Amino acid sequence: MPATTSAYQAVNLAQKFSLFSEHWSQKIIAQMNDYQFKLARLQGEFIWHTHADTDETFIVVDGELRIEFRDGAVTLQAGEMYVVPKGKEHKPVAEREVKLLLVEPSGTPNTGDQGGARTTPGDVWI
Amino acid sequence: MPATTSAYQAVNLAQKFSLFSEHWSQKIIAQMNDYQFKLARLQGEFIWHTHADTDETFIVVDGELRIEFRDGAVTLQAGEMYVVPKGKEHKPVAEREVKLLLVEPSGTPNTGDQGGARTTPGDVWI
Repeated sequence: MPATTSAYQAVNLAQKFSLFSEHWSQKIIAQMNDYQFKLARLQGEFIWHTHADTDETFIVVDGELRIEFRDGAVTLQAGEMYVVPKGKEHKPVAEREVKLLLVEPSGTPNTGDQGGARTTPGDVWI
Repeated sequence: MPATTSAYQAVNLAQKFSLFSEHWSQKIIAQMNDYQFKLARLQGEFIWHTHADTDETFIVVDGELRIEFRDGAVTLQAGEMYVVPKGKEHKPVAEREVKLLLVEPSGTPNTGDQGGARTTPGDVWI
């Protein structure tokens, strides 16, 4: 292998998921301008919350995620994505563990406008 | 199934890839704020180009993609991603067909600052 290639490293999602096991904790794996790509493992129900200032992208890597809205829901399987519009109240629910790739502006709190006990640090890189 | 869920539809990457077969043509599948998620099938060599104003995210869904730089390269397998920094000259190369998910600001031309014959419309939704 040419030595010149060593400075550039792919980000491998499976390898990054192997670095943590806790649920509902977001880990940053890449940044594009002022947006971040974050991994999370979800299991159980989250809280209803809203991001007033930004859309939020959910991409399911493994498992099945239901995103509930006040008037319906969308279910995502592995290889499926959904963009929750800004200002749209939502609640993620995972009956079994889901591996998720999130894309959103840096500094977006996981609990949106709700805050509270389920809020986790949003600045942890792995 | 509750009728109330029908308004919300997941975006399925495999289904979207089934809608086109041409190479080097970007198809928009989702928008988050002023950023877009685009699918592309790549095969062969692209041209050297630079995006002066934005980073560009490559996520390989299937196959193997090499992104060449003037002083090295990075190779991405399925499940791997890389963010090419703004201003960084690069050339994507796919020995065999690659299925790619791109994330970048809406209106980002595929040929960056180079323009020319390989430029394709950047506003096609599927």
